[in-house]
Amino acid sequence: MSVTRRTSIAAALAAPALATLPAAAQQAAPQAQGSRQAPGFYRSKVGTYEVTVVNDGFNRRPNPAEGFVRNADAAAVNRALEAEMLPTGHLDITFNITFVNTGSELILFDTGTGGLLAPTAGTMWDNMAAAGIDPARVNKIVFTHFHGDHVSGLVTREGQARFPNAELIVPETEWAFWMGERAPQQPAAMVKGRFGPYAADRIRRVASNAEVAPGIAGVPTHGHTPGHTSYLISSGSSTLIVLGDVTNHPTINARNPGWHVVFDMDAAEAEATRRRLFDRAAADRTPIVGYHWPFPSIGYVRPQGNGYDVIAAPWTSAI
Amino acid sequence: MSVTRRTSIAAALAAPALATLPAAAQQAAPQAQGSRQAPGFYRSKVGTYEVTVVNDGFNRRPNPAEGFVRNADAAAVNRALEAEMLPTGHLDITFNITFVNTGSELILFDTGTGGLLAPTAGTMWDNMAAAGIDPARVNKIVFTHFHGDHVSGLVTREGQARFPNAELIVPETEWAFWMGERAPQQPAAMVKGRFGPYAADRIRRVASNAEVAPGIAGVPTHGHTPGHTSYLISSGSSTLIVLGDVTNHPTINARNPGWHVVFDMDAAEAEATRRRLFDRAAADRTPIVGYHWPFPSIGYVRPQGNGYDVIAAPWTSAI
Repeated sequence: MSVTRRTSIAAALAAPALATLPAAAQQAAPQAQGSRQAPGFYRSKVGTYEVTVVNDGFNRRPNPAEGFVRNADAAAVNRALEAEMLPTGHLDITFNITFVNTGSELILFDTGTGGLLAPTAGTMWDNMAAAGIDPARVNKIVFTHFHGDHVSGLVTREGQARFPNAELIVPETEWAFWMGERAPQQPAAMVKGRFGPYAADRIRRVASNAEVAPGIAGVPTHGHTPGHTSYLISSGSSTLIVLGDVTNHPTINARNPGWHVVFDMDAAEAEATRRRLFDRAAADRTPIVGYHWPFPSIGYVRPQGNGYDVIAAPWTSAI
Repeated sequence: MSVTRRTSIAAALAAPALATLPAAAQQAAPQAQGSRQAPGFYRSKVGTYEVTVVNDGFNRRPNPAEGFVRNADAAAVNRALEAEMLPTGHLDITFNITFVNTGSELILFDTGTGGLLAPTAGTMWDNMAAAGIDPARVNKIVFTHFHGDHVSGLVTREGQARFPNAELIVPETEWAFWMGERAPQQPAAMVKGRFGPYAADRIRRVASNAEVAPGIAGVPTHGHTPGHTSYLISSGSSTLIVLGDVTNHPTINARNPGWHVVFDMDAAEAEATRRRLFDRAAADRTPIVGYHWPFPSIGYVRPQGNGYDVIAAPWTSAI
């Protein structure tokens, strides 16, 4: 059936070809194909606050139906990918970092991969430069959690601090877990290495519901990690949720909120958190920026069937 | 209910504020908010062909529930907008122009508004420059139809030809209509003015199913205008449909294919065309670039309820 229909489109190709071109058309010299994508940053406003989402590239996961979702079989995962017109041979997991410029503060939420985790990731620095964001002007970095793709951008490849003037604000539950004895050894060493170049008096541990700047407060969303925290940005009557990893890829985790990806440390708590937050955001029509949603990664959730559709906010040239 | 839930998110704001900042954080001078959006171009590949979608801004239509859809009442239009998380007070209709670089030809599909139609439109030229596209290297311009937002970019404000080396390829049915006596007088005069600066021997009239370049052929999609034509781009095993105005905004016309917008000249034929093309593209999983879809405006249609969902192709930094 599919072949027949494709053939019916392609039948148009059998139509008569053009005759020779007029002289004018011959003069246009071929242009080399461009290799560049447009810079991966996207600006929008939340009240008087300016939000800039900066893309840090992606990690290509081969065979996403195998070993990624703990409680769904391969056929179900492949069906979900096919329904969203995605390939089944790989799944690109993107990284999107949020900056909020309040007018007097420049606040960064998580720090990306630092170019340390995948050859296709680490574009954040070029995209920050394209957006005119100076890392020396970041005065606060707020963390959702301490997985490697969120904390590695703290440091250069040589292990130096990338943000010379930033206070680091961390959920105290998250800090206590990774610095404590229950944490798995290797990732805990990674976390300590990323925070290491920053003096202890520049790291502030706060409750997951603390206000971290005027109109910006934590929303406890534990489960993905023990201290995972989302943030609600409010300015005037406008709001935006910085989601972090309440979901991984939306086709996996929003469309199927009951699916448990391998990175969820307490999968049952992560699922309960996901459903609670999305039910609330859907009822309120609150926009969300999702760390692993396709760039520009700002959208809305809407209940649909057993899960949620993510409705992308339309791109606009008007900020 | 909505207010209660919003309040429950905002309750986090009552949490204790931060104490004074450490000295380091005080050193970060505030950064001015940026006024720029990233350039509106998006690159992807169809086989060996490079496709660049260039945004030309948008027209803001006030009160889209009134006078835009001929055969739906205001309440139904507002419900459709609300379901897609869009405002009801206005609807931004975007303009997205497609360039195909085959390696030896640089082919443009339609020409945008030329900055002549709305104060928020006319960004195509800046975005072309950002993408490194030289108008003098465009050797063919292929038209879907002759409405003002598709042909006005042919000329400068002073009425000069913008594309010195391009052959203009036009559907012969469209040309015959607008140059003939049945066409409404004012828009026909506009059309003649846009093509006027181009010598007659640079304008080629072809059948709506003609091949216009290797692997690129017309697909007759009459209805929106008498000679409206879409194009199928094929390279290797990859394909892309350049849709033109088979739909206006997808919330209006894909979600609701039976709705007739005021610009459809033969609305019944336009609807039949839309359903036929979308049924085929959905079955084939053929990607589509929609002139009035939100930028980057490449996606897939999928039957859903009485209409079609548009599933955006995920943005990627890998071309």
